[in-house]
Amino acid sequence: MDTAAIYHRSESEYAYLYERGHYHIRIRTKAKDVDSVELISGDPYALDEQKWYTDGKEMKKVATTNMHDYWMIDTHEPTKRMAYGFRVIGKDGIEIFYSDQGVYPFEETFLEQMNFYFRVPYIHEIDAFRAPKWASETIWYQIFPERFRNGDESNNPEGTLPWASKEHPSRDDFYGGDLQGVLDGLDYLEELGINGIYFTPVFEAHSNHKYDTIDYKEIDPDFGDKELFKKVVDEAHNRGMRVMIDAVFNHVGIQSGQWQDVLLNQENSKYKDWFYIHSFPVEDVSDLSTEELENVGRVNYDTFAFTGHMPKLNTANPEVQEYLLDIATYWIKEFDIDAWRLDVANEVDHFFWKRFFKETTNIKEDLYILGEIWHSSQNWLNGDEFHAVMNYAFTDNIENYFFKKILSPTRLVSSLNSQLMLYRKQTTEVMFNLLDSHDTPRLLTKAGGDKSLVKSAMAFLYSQPGAPCMYYGTEVGLDGEGDPDCRKCMIWDENKQDHDMLRFSKDLIRFRKKYQPILSYGETEWHDVRDDEQFLGFKRKLGNQELYFFFNQDEDEAFLPLLPHGAHKVFGFNDESYEEDEILHQNGFSVYYYVDNEEEKKQRLMKKRKRAKKRKVLLEAIKSS
Amino acid sequence: MDTAAIYHRSESEYAYLYERGHYHIRIRTKAKDVDSVELISGDPYALDEQKWYTDGKEMKKVATTNMHDYWMIDTHEPTKRMAYGFRVIGKDGIEIFYSDQGVYPFEETFLEQMNFYFRVPYIHEIDAFRAPKWASETIWYQIFPERFRNGDESNNPEGTLPWASKEHPSRDDFYGGDLQGVLDGLDYLEELGINGIYFTPVFEAHSNHKYDTIDYKEIDPDFGDKELFKKVVDEAHNRGMRVMIDAVFNHVGIQSGQWQDVLLNQENSKYKDWFYIHSFPVEDVSDLSTEELENVGRVNYDTFAFTGHMPKLNTANPEVQEYLLDIATYWIKEFDIDAWRLDVANEVDHFFWKRFFKETTNIKEDLYILGEIWHSSQNWLNGDEFHAVMNYAFTDNIENYFFKKILSPTRLVSSLNSQLMLYRKQTTEVMFNLLDSHDTPRLLTKAGGDKSLVKSAMAFLYSQPGAPCMYYGTEVGLDGEGDPDCRKCMIWDENKQDHDMLRFSKDLIRFRKKYQPILSYGETEWHDVRDDEQFLGFKRKLGNQELYFFFNQDEDEAFLPLLPHGAHKVFGFNDESYEEDEILHQNGFSVYYYVDNEEEKKQRLMKKRKRAKKRKVLLEAIKSS
Repeated sequence: MDTAAIYHRSESEYAYLYERGHYHIRIRTKAKDVDSVELISGDPYALDEQKWYTDGKEMKKVATTNMHDYWMIDTHEPTKRMAYGFRVIGKDGIEIFYSDQGVYPFEETFLEQMNFYFRVPYIHEIDAFRAPKWASETIWYQIFPERFRNGDESNNPEGTLPWASKEHPSRDDFYGGDLQGVLDGLDYLEELGINGIYFTPVFEAHSNHKYDTIDYKEIDPDFGDKELFKKVVDEAHNRGMRVMIDAVFNHVGIQSGQWQDVLLNQENSKYKDWFYIHSFPVEDVSDLSTEELENVGRVNYDTFAFTGHMPKLNTANPEVQEYLLDIATYWIKEFDIDAWRLDVANEVDHFFWKRFFKETTNIKEDLYILGEIWHSSQNWLNGDEFHAVMNYAFTDNIENYFFKKILSPTRLVSSLNSQLMLYRKQTTEVMFNLLDSHDTPRLLTKAGGDKSLVKSAMAFLYSQPGAPCMYYGTEVGLDGEGDPDCRKCMIWDENKQDHDMLRFSKDLIRFRKKYQPILSYGETEWHDVRDDEQFLGFKRKLGNQELYFFFNQDEDEAFLPLLPHGAHKVFGFNDESYEEDEILHQNGFSVYYYVDNEEEKKQRLMKKRKRAKKRKVLLEAIKSS
Repeated sequence: MDTAAIYHRSESEYAYLYERGHYHIRIRTKAKDVDSVELISGDPYALDEQKWYTDGKEMKKVATTNMHDYWMIDTHEPTKRMAYGFRVIGKDGIEIFYSDQGVYPFEETFLEQMNFYFRVPYIHEIDAFRAPKWASETIWYQIFPERFRNGDESNNPEGTLPWASKEHPSRDDFYGGDLQGVLDGLDYLEELGINGIYFTPVFEAHSNHKYDTIDYKEIDPDFGDKELFKKVVDEAHNRGMRVMIDAVFNHVGIQSGQWQDVLLNQENSKYKDWFYIHSFPVEDVSDLSTEELENVGRVNYDTFAFTGHMPKLNTANPEVQEYLLDIATYWIKEFDIDAWRLDVANEVDHFFWKRFFKETTNIKEDLYILGEIWHSSQNWLNGDEFHAVMNYAFTDNIENYFFKKILSPTRLVSSLNSQLMLYRKQTTEVMFNLLDSHDTPRLLTKAGGDKSLVKSAMAFLYSQPGAPCMYYGTEVGLDGEGDPDCRKCMIWDENKQDHDMLRFSKDLIRFRKKYQPILSYGETEWHDVRDDEQFLGFKRKLGNQELYFFFNQDEDEAFLPLLPHGAHKVFGFNDESYEEDEILHQNGFSVYYYVDNEEEKKQRLMKKRKRAKKRKVLLEAIKSS
């Protein structure tokens, strides 16, 4: 057994309170190396009891990657205190006791050592990761306001181009999209079925993307005003939609009052400590073109990336903290927004985000806080900073499997499992899952224009735990390469909309809503992963309800495996019934729903044999055809 | 190569800011499995540069355990941003790229993938772990006030026994130790050389140990009053000594006003939510004896351990938080204490300790916060809760090596290294290292009464990073089994004091103070670990200064290895010069100091050969004698 590969970390994603009465413990071993793992535990103060620790409780292998197996147990401790260790039995028959003190032989003499054990000192609900329930129930729709809909010509910025007049917009274009447009579009969104809107920035800013904030307390005049914004939020709420807006707190725009004051007064500016300025006089880059600003190189102040027009804010400065926290709470108190999406969240300090979490959730307990982080994010997701991150790692996996085809089904499962094991279960349930955004090429373009691929990828996204997000226009066939091409104008002309995709999107959203509890909270079991057929079959399970998903990416048709009797199809694409069996064509998928109960179990057993026989005949017929 | 055993975790003890300009990165591999590790890194925004990541920077193997090797690099990033991964070359010649996405072949195609890398998004000093510098310079002396010295007969509690009148004190004894006694003893402590006093609780309480607090805002009348306490603190400060007191915030005593109110008013008590009460009426255990209270079993409220007289406080209740934080800040503001030791710190929630840290360090920036935690404590030592924990894991290692003799020298080094790698370097520097306390048998007793063993263990403790603590009386030969026997009265009768041990203690403290920077901040190199001889040789190094330590636990004498010319002995015990060589007898130790400079290097080379020859002759003479 490879004992050096065993890993556990107390008070982390490896040991956490899931919900009252359910403490989850995970452990990692080398893949295919270990036969079984048991949890040895007890109340560390019950020392006078003859044997204070329990016999081993069996742990379940819940995830396998190409490198590791992960084992899990859901425990309950009546005294809320637990000392615990692991009995690990290798495939080579070796048995060890793994604990806070490392690896020892599985012998009484070591098991008795209280100080050897990992600890859950006392289960405190106040320290647990909790996310608002609605966040797991949401299907998001991302709106880039300048390009969603122009509802009011009167606030068009100077030089506004006719809607969708360029096939490929450039960085400096304005098309007049605004909040009146969003208001006018709410009926459309309601019909689509989404129940959360995520807006990229709406505050006063210079550019069309508004990430270079001028004033965080004003709606950009090109978009409308506060009254109109309030109306949008209220009307969204009336339709059962949550509203998330974008906080760009890592940096400000050079047109902001603070930066302008620095440029004017230099060392004497009262804002000089609001930024990371290396020397005076501070360089003024205002005259550069948008393209030049995007990669200005090293200037004498810290910036977001190397973009000269976005000086980085010094969030360690208490004045800056107060300034930003006032903004963060203002839009909740005055406009009742439901969520903040935090731009470049990883580059702002944890100290600030902890204050942000405390002060915002103090006002609105069920606020959802979403960080833009592209890499592993354990340190932001411990329950006192963010509820979720934009799950680009998940996006990458789907892309690499469905579009780039550089992952085998097994390797896809491996990568997804690695991701899953990075976070607590309740975190995964509210993850923000997306296939594209204003920062990436569009889904349809990534799929090489293949709509059936787009559908499979979307269905896969919706099959997983975490809240899916649709980028505006995906549902009507909008395409585009990376920024600025992914920010094309929304298609409102019904003759140009892709009606098939729109229908599919509505069906998919309806499906997600209907089975949301299973999809959000259920276990996943990868029961039919066929590398030689590019076929993926998995089960989502919650209580006695199950959803079976099948995806075929192979040129050849694929047969579904035998399903429990009573399972019935609830969704699919490029699929076809063939007598009692079902075939998936390339890029097709099927979803079956099944309720497990005793009566059906009996019937299933009786019919299984008969079915199997028939199936064999059919398969042979297909092969010889 | 065993790739499944490789481990790294960003933003943890594996990746942290040590001090400005010094970012430490560690990685773990299977022991003896890897030839070299290099850090591959770059600014993730420098994408337009032809190759944005650097060639590998070599990492150093800094610690080896029986299971793993740990590699480290001290880096500096000019833009404060870094994407990083590792090139790991196995002893089998296999080369891999290890990153946030796991293990890949070391090939350009993977190295180029920005999203694969671990990240230091932006180095924020505000998020770094910082401890007060004085904490690393301190030699603590732990006082159990009831047993240190009786300076005022007038405040003797009822039934006070004559000082040290019982060979073995029982749980209920009172001997009249008090703060006047401490005041009177300060000259003695100053002469001893210590520069920090750690008091077990001094607040009003029922028992002799005072862990069952009645009133956190009063000095126990058996000990004196606030005025006297202030005098003790001031006089200690005048002597350059810091003062640490004990906060028992996990629970209160049943005599406290709050608990008495609960007993009286039950459901109607305004304090009912201050505790974890399972049902009403709450059981009243006041009538039980001390012995019975210590293990009352399960009552209908949560307690510390199973001690009925210590009901657990509900620190998630904001009222309780305010109450305790007021106390925490009161003793700093009014009495200028320098440190808080937090009793049963692991069983109180993190949410509370984070508030505690913020509010106390806000008042006194260089406050030292020490948690009582006996197990691995990473989650409390991230820079926003505690500075250190009572390092019992370290104590265990020393005990298991020097006293119980169940560790070989190699295994001792392995265990110490495992401990070291649990924490950031700056945390280890301020760790609270002890050999015994009021909660364990006394050092001399653990050493089976063998004073030479005691001296070796003490010397070893003082040779390591972390602040050593001496439990009152160790310096004059006090012994005792576990509680209550380890709480005997201090020996003031000079005829009964162990003068040899006192001299040794003074010498050891003087030695620690003289070489404190090397001992606190220096690297450790285990250059001469001889399992067959129970011999341990290691080097502590800071800049060009080195301290060589040698410990012999074998019955046979041991020769020291050749030392650089110019190294001179600065401390030792049971050691003997034999011509130009030195012999260590059983339980002996020697310490050499050496400054590395060019001139001496030359001389050393010249003499080395001559010395080696002579040594060989001597060794043979010894063996044949």
